[in-house]
Amino acid sequence: MSRTLHLNVFIHGRGHHEAAWRHPRAGSAPLTDIGFYEQIAAIAERGRFDSVFFADHLAIGSEVRHAARGALEPLTLLAALARATEHIGLIATASSTYTEPYNLARQFASIDHISGGRAGWNIVTSWLKATSANFGDSAQLGHDERYDRAFEYLDVVTKLWDSWADDAHVDDRHSGTYVDADRVRAIRHSGRYYQVAGALNVPRSPQGRPLLVQAGSSDKGRQFAATYAEAVFTAHLEKATAVEFSTDLKARAAALGRDPGHVLVLPGLSPAIGSTEAEAAALWDELNALTVPEVGLGHLSARFGGADLSHLSLDERLSPGDLPDPANVEGAQSRAELIHRLVASERPTLRALLHKLAGGRGHYITAGTPEQIADVIEDWFRSGAADGFNVMPPILPAVLTDFVEQVVPILQRRGLFRREYTESTLRGHYGLSRPENRFFPAGR
Amino acid sequence: MSRTLHLNVFIHGRGHHEAAWRHPRAGSAPLTDIGFYEQIAAIAERGRFDSVFFADHLAIGSEVRHAARGALEPLTLLAALARATEHIGLIATASSTYTEPYNLARQFASIDHISGGRAGWNIVTSWLKATSANFGDSAQLGHDERYDRAFEYLDVVTKLWDSWADDAHVDDRHSGTYVDADRVRAIRHSGRYYQVAGALNVPRSPQGRPLLVQAGSSDKGRQFAATYAEAVFTAHLEKATAVEFSTDLKARAAALGRDPGHVLVLPGLSPAIGSTEAEAAALWDELNALTVPEVGLGHLSARFGGADLSHLSLDERLSPGDLPDPANVEGAQSRAELIHRLVASERPTLRALLHKLAGGRGHYITAGTPEQIADVIEDWFRSGAADGFNVMPPILPAVLTDFVEQVVPILQRRGLFRREYTESTLRGHYGLSRPENRFFPAGR
Repeated sequence: MSRTLHLNVFIHGRGHHEAAWRHPRAGSAPLTDIGFYEQIAAIAERGRFDSVFFADHLAIGSEVRHAARGALEPLTLLAALARATEHIGLIATASSTYTEPYNLARQFASIDHISGGRAGWNIVTSWLKATSANFGDSAQLGHDERYDRAFEYLDVVTKLWDSWADDAHVDDRHSGTYVDADRVRAIRHSGRYYQVAGALNVPRSPQGRPLLVQAGSSDKGRQFAATYAEAVFTAHLEKATAVEFSTDLKARAAALGRDPGHVLVLPGLSPAIGSTEAEAAALWDELNALTVPEVGLGHLSARFGGADLSHLSLDERLSPGDLPDPANVEGAQSRAELIHRLVASERPTLRALLHKLAGGRGHYITAGTPEQIADVIEDWFRSGAADGFNVMPPILPAVLTDFVEQVVPILQRRGLFRREYTESTLRGHYGLSRPENRFFPAGR
Repeated sequence: MSRTLHLNVFIHGRGHHEAAWRHPRAGSAPLTDIGFYEQIAAIAERGRFDSVFFADHLAIGSEVRHAARGALEPLTLLAALARATEHIGLIATASSTYTEPYNLARQFASIDHISGGRAGWNIVTSWLKATSANFGDSAQLGHDERYDRAFEYLDVVTKLWDSWADDAHVDDRHSGTYVDADRVRAIRHSGRYYQVAGALNVPRSPQGRPLLVQAGSSDKGRQFAATYAEAVFTAHLEKATAVEFSTDLKARAAALGRDPGHVLVLPGLSPAIGSTEAEAAALWDELNALTVPEVGLGHLSARFGGADLSHLSLDERLSPGDLPDPANVEGAQSRAELIHRLVASERPTLRALLHKLAGGRGHYITAGTPEQIADVIEDWFRSGAADGFNVMPPILPAVLTDFVEQVVPILQRRGLFRREYTESTLRGHYGLSRPENRFFPAGR
């Protein structure tokens, strides 16, 4: 088969379950220890993963009392990992709202050089009030304006990445010409939100442009992804919504003239793996028993714009009316809608809902034997729900090791996943070509 | 003797001479090759240098035609070097004018964690028009306002670095307390230029705060350095002005209640090294013969606010009246004054002036045998001109290798310089203590 599965590992604290840091299988390294991340990246590379990924939040709050927060900054972390790894792609989140485009463009270009073409940028527009309070407050924008700015931001950043022709650096000692200055271009961008003269002060990077990743799910977020994203992280609690999402996103990309096969959809998957299904499921119980309800409540409240949920009792069944209307929620609306739908269909107790969200924060969580996990993956992959998965191990690195040692070999035997790296760049792993330079097309 | 010499290597292109990239002794690696920097750092570490340093410019112009420009971004570069080195300090320039304080604080804190306490920040306020044009244009500020903002910026950044007590991360699995939230503090900074709620999302770093370095020489620049800087890079063409500068800076620091021994002054030194003085001097001739006058003229013009100097002829003697009045120059006024003084005293031809500046851009350049170079270093060190040197090899890595193999052993034999690293942090190398946390003093 020509279509190949893609696997990214999402690195988050000591694991994606909110209480992972307390579990006996979790390591004890602090989240500021580069060795912890090097270990995870080495395991993922041994499993022939396409990439590792770091999310980011530009603020920290009281959740840190009970949740593993306060870690290394993602871009400096990627740069360090670039030298500790050989093959795996390196993706990090950075905010288009709170980083100057010139700074962001050059840091990612630089990481792409340092890693030999393995950098990817997960584009976020940042919507938390706590974040804007760390950046002068005035910058908090509405959902639509954040995306309007993000569209222009991407235009600026991709122009900067294209501001050097690939052959600009001639380095001719004899004639004294270091760079063919006719092959470096001032971008002279003057738009509604940004004025950037260019050129970038970093030559074009090995991938031409770092891989563009995105995770928005609102209408505007999908349109943005369809326009710019090459890989899309997405959260689904069931296959049906994942199919619907992927179908919609690829149709939007096609309508914009893009090859829908070049927009890879990677739903989150948080697996507990055991020698029996019951043993696997027990891991969720162990983890849930370690949760602190106020952490989960804080997250749930944040999902609904900071709504006060303190009147709800943990062990009574919820109905959708107990939660604010998602239409009024600023930020990750789609995540609020997903929770609403879940409450409507399952009528869980608040405690059960918090446990479900503690495991994967709205992503698909499952438990099973390695064969069962591989079955889920193959099913989603073959039915158009996924081009691959954003693997979110509930405990890190322990469950990633389980996945690499027990699930990956099954996927390889089934012919779904690579046995060896065959490409040297992140774009190569994802089957994507190197983008043509818009200012200096090939053969000119 | 208790006072110890400090050595930093300033990494710039393929060497500090403008034409170094064309010289047969220069390497051929592109400036985007991390291996090039790893090689230099390894040589410097072998020479027991205190630190390596990268300058930065947030723009690139037509000088790239004949000058080696377009390199890796300094912070991602430092993060990568942190894993390729074990002992040496890692200093990079970043702009207080064009980087959000929250972003800068966390990236440097992160590098300090990744390197185990070896990060340093060279604070610049950025004055080039070409830079402001890459950052929305509106942000170009006058000299005094840039420094007013920089004072507040440092207040914000140092608060963020102190926003976690060293013992905040308790990681108590049993009780479920990950962080003692009473030991993490929202800084709630609300000033004239910045509003930052804090806390930082990175725990306090190994050095408490990365080392603060600065290079301003104007009155306001000196006052800023006396207030915040722990190491100061400075450019002098003669020992007398270096003594005067160091004396003034230390007096200012003392007047602010600081220990003047904790403000280390490191003049730039660009040495050509040979088995005879004549052989050493020949290197400058070789390099000067490779210069392209338009590059030097462009630099000289930039030093004088972009003044048109095209009417001057290369081989006629200059008088000070040929150059604009330094008092009218925005930006690095002190450098313009230094050039004016040189022209007044030596009456060089324009070509000779360009050659002098091509070697060290206004820093002290010299040529000699290893003993002669060591004599200069010892003389400046003993006479109060320098606590150490910002070594600017005219060719990289070749002349750094010469320095490490030929000059360092002499300095070691004279008891001026360390034979082995005895400390593990950059502050340790420079003999500086770990700063107390302003919010969480020891014993509280």
